[in-house]
Amino acid sequence: MVDAETPTRKRRGGGRSGNAARRGTAVIEQSAWRIPVNTDHPTEPLPPEGVAAIHEAAMTILEEIGIEFLNVEARDILRKAGCTIEGENVRMDRDFVMEMIGRAPSQFTLTPRNPDRQITIGGNHILFGNVSSPPNYWDMELGRKLPGTREMCRNLLKLTQYFNCIHFAGGYPVEPVDIHASVRHLDVLYDKLTLSDKVMHAYSLGRERVEDVMEMVRIAGGWSHEEFEATPRMYTNINSTSPLKHDEPMLDGWMRLARRGQGLVVTPFTLAGAMAPVTMAGAVAQSLAEGLCAIALAQYINPGVPCVIGTFTSNVDMKSGAPAFGTPEYMRSTQMTGQMARFYGLPMRSSGVCAANVPDGQAVWETSNSLWAAVQSGSNMVYHAAGWLEGGLIASPEKFVMDCEVLQQIQRYFEPAIVDTSAEALALDAIRDVGPGGHFFGTQHTQDRYTTAFYQPFLSDWHNFEAWEAAGAVWTPERAHRVYKDIIGSFEPPPMDEAIRDELADFVARRKAEGGAPTDF
Amino acid sequence: MVDAETPTRKRRGGGRSGNAARRGTAVIEQSAWRIPVNTDHPTEPLPPEGVAAIHEAAMTILEEIGIEFLNVEARDILRKAGCTIEGENVRMDRDFVMEMIGRAPSQFTLTPRNPDRQITIGGNHILFGNVSSPPNYWDMELGRKLPGTREMCRNLLKLTQYFNCIHFAGGYPVEPVDIHASVRHLDVLYDKLTLSDKVMHAYSLGRERVEDVMEMVRIAGGWSHEEFEATPRMYTNINSTSPLKHDEPMLDGWMRLARRGQGLVVTPFTLAGAMAPVTMAGAVAQSLAEGLCAIALAQYINPGVPCVIGTFTSNVDMKSGAPAFGTPEYMRSTQMTGQMARFYGLPMRSSGVCAANVPDGQAVWETSNSLWAAVQSGSNMVYHAAGWLEGGLIASPEKFVMDCEVLQQIQRYFEPAIVDTSAEALALDAIRDVGPGGHFFGTQHTQDRYTTAFYQPFLSDWHNFEAWEAAGAVWTPERAHRVYKDIIGSFEPPPMDEAIRDELADFVARRKAEGGAPTDF
Repeated sequence: MVDAETPTRKRRGGGRSGNAARRGTAVIEQSAWRIPVNTDHPTEPLPPEGVAAIHEAAMTILEEIGIEFLNVEARDILRKAGCTIEGENVRMDRDFVMEMIGRAPSQFTLTPRNPDRQITIGGNHILFGNVSSPPNYWDMELGRKLPGTREMCRNLLKLTQYFNCIHFAGGYPVEPVDIHASVRHLDVLYDKLTLSDKVMHAYSLGRERVEDVMEMVRIAGGWSHEEFEATPRMYTNINSTSPLKHDEPMLDGWMRLARRGQGLVVTPFTLAGAMAPVTMAGAVAQSLAEGLCAIALAQYINPGVPCVIGTFTSNVDMKSGAPAFGTPEYMRSTQMTGQMARFYGLPMRSSGVCAANVPDGQAVWETSNSLWAAVQSGSNMVYHAAGWLEGGLIASPEKFVMDCEVLQQIQRYFEPAIVDTSAEALALDAIRDVGPGGHFFGTQHTQDRYTTAFYQPFLSDWHNFEAWEAAGAVWTPERAHRVYKDIIGSFEPPPMDEAIRDELADFVARRKAEGGAPTDF
Repeated sequence: MVDAETPTRKRRGGGRSGNAARRGTAVIEQSAWRIPVNTDHPTEPLPPEGVAAIHEAAMTILEEIGIEFLNVEARDILRKAGCTIEGENVRMDRDFVMEMIGRAPSQFTLTPRNPDRQITIGGNHILFGNVSSPPNYWDMELGRKLPGTREMCRNLLKLTQYFNCIHFAGGYPVEPVDIHASVRHLDVLYDKLTLSDKVMHAYSLGRERVEDVMEMVRIAGGWSHEEFEATPRMYTNINSTSPLKHDEPMLDGWMRLARRGQGLVVTPFTLAGAMAPVTMAGAVAQSLAEGLCAIALAQYINPGVPCVIGTFTSNVDMKSGAPAFGTPEYMRSTQMTGQMARFYGLPMRSSGVCAANVPDGQAVWETSNSLWAAVQSGSNMVYHAAGWLEGGLIASPEKFVMDCEVLQQIQRYFEPAIVDTSAEALALDAIRDVGPGGHFFGTQHTQDRYTTAFYQPFLSDWHNFEAWEAAGAVWTPERAHRVYKDIIGSFEPPPMDEAIRDELADFVARRKAEGGAPTDF
């Protein structure tokens, strides 16, 4: 099925978009789909006693201070499990926590409707997801910040599907506020499931939404309920309300997915100096306590259900209290959390983040810091890896495209071929043949390898200044804008059976007729 | 002494520059001068057998293929040392090479005229230098690429001196082509020595230049010849003419500084696929061979003279043959060279590099990749760490300022306080006091620490979009331009005795009268 918007966009988009669409060819030469394996030893700033100290602090928080679970069912379950409940406060001892965490697999798969898009989470795998949940959108053409719409959301979903370096579809890449909140999840999931065949996410924002999304993912996969539950197909991500609180709908969704054996990611947002101590070790310990107790709950409900411990520990601006991202403190807390995740034997999630408002140098250095921190920490899932601006308040297609260039480079960085030291790679014969003052361009050794020897960017411009100037002196964000337009203009959604598409549409229509989800929270 | 240009610039520069200059206050709040210690374990892509294989290849190049030394004196010395000389080709066996390398210190100091600016090279220290040697200049005000001038060079030298994260002054930050080549070194060294009190560099571009620069550094320090030679005061960097060649003037300068016990850095420019094999291990092995033979020569001449092995191994663009920088291949070759430098017990130099033509997103991701590779490789000297564009063909003050923001963040990243896991840092009492749903802003634990808890940027804008827009919606390069103007407008050179300044000026006048240096090469 060809995207219904394409013809209009082709006319508007002019030359390059139109040509690419007519040719039916790829608009850029991107890297192939693959599941990257992080071959680096993680960067570990903590000595063993530092790991022990943070563990001790996290356990003390859970044992002595406790976490508020604003969900009656969750408290009932944890009471039954032997935890101490006082009002909404839940305390759990370390033996229970560690026993429950011990049930969680260190590695698992998520298998979406296209089995070729299966991803493995845990071990040395590092996977990237699109920006999720900004309420606003910015692009070069608009030149200003606007509330998200369904069209903007669809465009960012097309980028999510298009780029092979994006492995999973997170939350809504921008919040489409032009759709009423009661039915937004229905329309966006319809868009997501028809525009993408990658792993899907459900927001834990109330029973109806979670159940609707699970049902739509099931329908899209053509699975029976048993097949849906036979292996993890999708996942949710919940955030604690730091400090020390899990709210009602998040816990509800968490338990629903736990029961059906789907993927569970818990990511406290512990901003040091605001919702967490001003000291990074304290913020990390608090984050771990908030995450581990949710994982303990899930493992009690469904032993062995796949769980991921997330980190979103950053710091505030000392002067204004505003959140900062991609800072030195952010990098170290991510690395520390990585050490702790390995200590607990849990897969880990971190993010690609920045505080910058536009896709400029600051955006890149902050995002680059956070992406390298993801690598250094041994993160398995990297949320918001493409498209995020303004501390998550803006989604930008230019930033998305720029980030994908960097993600491709990180993927290439992990390829063992670069550090091959075989006799062929050491190339002594070529060095001998070329000799002093010669040139390697024309040698057989080069000719045999030059098409695949090096990473080839799609967005970096390696022309010299004069050639770059002659071609219009286009800076990075504008180049990214053009790539974005080309991709959108020639986008072809992945195949889907007409019958399944109809079933999805019928489901959306029926649930809309029923009123969708309540919007009283 | 106030810079003679300041009053004019103050009037031209308008508001902020003028105010900052009048107030006599710092234009930005920058990090303090310090010698950063890289606390991370290096990233080591090679297994032990990979290190052994590259060593074997480098030794085989030196033993069997040989390096051309286009300098009669160097060949005579190496012949005396027992090397095999055939024409200009020099072969040296591994026992000799390893014995000579074993004489080089693993760590040493360079002490400039201001002893507070002493730097330690080697061990875990990581030091940053300014951009060196671009023939051209670009800034936002010009908006175009122009050949360098003395004024541009002076402005970049002021940035070099101003920023505490820049530890040493490399070569000319832009080549001032408005000064005749015969006397250029005299004028620029006068500018460097009067505008900066940091460690100085001499180009090895002929006997007269090297001797003039050493003499000027000696005069500026107020040292006798004995005092100059008592400890390393300055350094040179030479590049081999890859593949497998060292040219006449470079070797001449190398030997002159070696005899006087000054710092020696050798940096082959092995561009994989052009001047080196298309495979990175081969390019690294060739680079090492070219570097190690120069170090062997220096150690034979003056045992124990401080030497640094440099890397500048990158790759070409597969499509155009143009050099690429900050690529995945660049990162891995830098890390591999780091492993080899530790194997040989030598301090290491790498660089901050990019192919981008303007200070945009590409410039930052390429530079960021290269700076993190410097960190990961355990590099001790990072050349071109601020200000470089277009593969080293352009120097830019905006890029300089942007890079310094990133360098400050890297320095902060190494501070052990961030990963402190003491009881105070774990902050259990604060977490207990604040409790679920509370806030850490007002707690005593936060109040006691918030002014120093987090890195404070001078260039990153952490305001939200609306505040950023209200302040003019200024993108990173334009913000950097304003900081640059403010710094230049209120720059105050470091103190220097009037008598020494006069002696320097007299030396320059006398050497100009003598005709300076020959320009026939």
